[in-house]
Amino acid sequence: MSEGRFISIEGGEGAGKSTSLRAIFDCLESREIEFVSTREPGGTALGEQVRELLLNPATPTMAPETELLLVFASRLQNVVEKIRPALQSGQWVVADRFVDASYAYQGGGRGVCEHRIASLHAWTLGTLVPDLTLLLDVSPEVGLRRAVKNRVADRFETEKMSFYERVRQAYLDRVSDDPERFIVIDARQPQKEMVRTLKKALLDWIDRHE
Amino acid sequence: MSEGRFISIEGGEGAGKSTSLRAIFDCLESREIEFVSTREPGGTALGEQVRELLLNPATPTMAPETELLLVFASRLQNVVEKIRPALQSGQWVVADRFVDASYAYQGGGRGVCEHRIASLHAWTLGTLVPDLTLLLDVSPEVGLRRAVKNRVADRFETEKMSFYERVRQAYLDRVSDDPERFIVIDARQPQKEMVRTLKKALLDWIDRHE
Repeated sequence: MSEGRFISIEGGEGAGKSTSLRAIFDCLESREIEFVSTREPGGTALGEQVRELLLNPATPTMAPETELLLVFASRLQNVVEKIRPALQSGQWVVADRFVDASYAYQGGGRGVCEHRIASLHAWTLGTLVPDLTLLLDVSPEVGLRRAVKNRVADRFETEKMSFYERVRQAYLDRVSDDPERFIVIDARQPQKEMVRTLKKALLDWIDRHE
Repeated sequence: MSEGRFISIEGGEGAGKSTSLRAIFDCLESREIEFVSTREPGGTALGEQVRELLLNPATPTMAPETELLLVFASRLQNVVEKIRPALQSGQWVVADRFVDASYAYQGGGRGVCEHRIASLHAWTLGTLVPDLTLLLDVSPEVGLRRAVKNRVADRFETEKMSFYERVRQAYLDRVSDDPERFIVIDARQPQKEMVRTLKKALLDWIDRHE
């Protein structure tokens, strides 16, 4: 039995991740591929408790590198408990955010040095990265307007616009560093068109990697 | 103004840490040394929330290295928010457990490789270790009997005896690796005698390092 494939989806607030996730599930189902889905931070019982700590606006102040350690704690648990066993059993994994989010949010957003993140990444995960990362790219002005329209902002969504501009740039830097792994989707498009673009690109990737 | 000194106290369950902490405070007060005290995991508002996650027996299962990342997250916050500012302002710091506890509990106890811990230690704290560590050494048979007599056991105290034997050995290995930094106190002694031994050794150290 061959190992499963590991797909992550990344993107700033309001880029349309939920809709895109459903589109990814549709694609995998249409190819009759067994998969599990997970999210970050969280994904496991322990990870969801860490997620609560990370996202709750009432959480006490923390240093950027404290936040990074907490994110990697949640991530390691997710890999050990859920992602590795699934991949090893031949299932595919779809992750709503993974390690690129640390380079974007704790790196670009909070200013933790990229080399420090890479070093903790190596300590925690070795060389594990997703086989494919779908990046939904949209300017923070457009994304945030969509994201917080109907609900209370979380601990990240209360950040300033410049924070999100740095997050977006850090994601694009990740793409430059490893272009083969990424498919960048223009998330300014109306949702229907975005989903169509994503499905086409993903089905093509699946057919080349199944 | 000179930097403060950093003293930690370590020891297995039921070794008499609370009594010994009060004895340390007495010694510092008798020398009119300003100090702050802290504890691990915890010590800061954020750290105390991580502490709850680490000690609560109802916390979901976690991998040993997840536990290590959470402990270091709490530790880093403690260093950034409390320990470093105090030392830099010339105050002394007394910590109820610090980094040696990770080598003992996550290393000896849970089996995380010592080099992995050392690497995360360096990532998180650079070369920071306490100036003095008081290790209360007692066999787990004696210690645990004292510790859980009057209360519900926490997530660590529900471990098997062999876990505590490995914790104790890992503490003693830390002493062998850096004997100058440690004062080992025989915690089998009746409490009054232990406190007398500790105070004598500590006052002597203070007079050489003030």
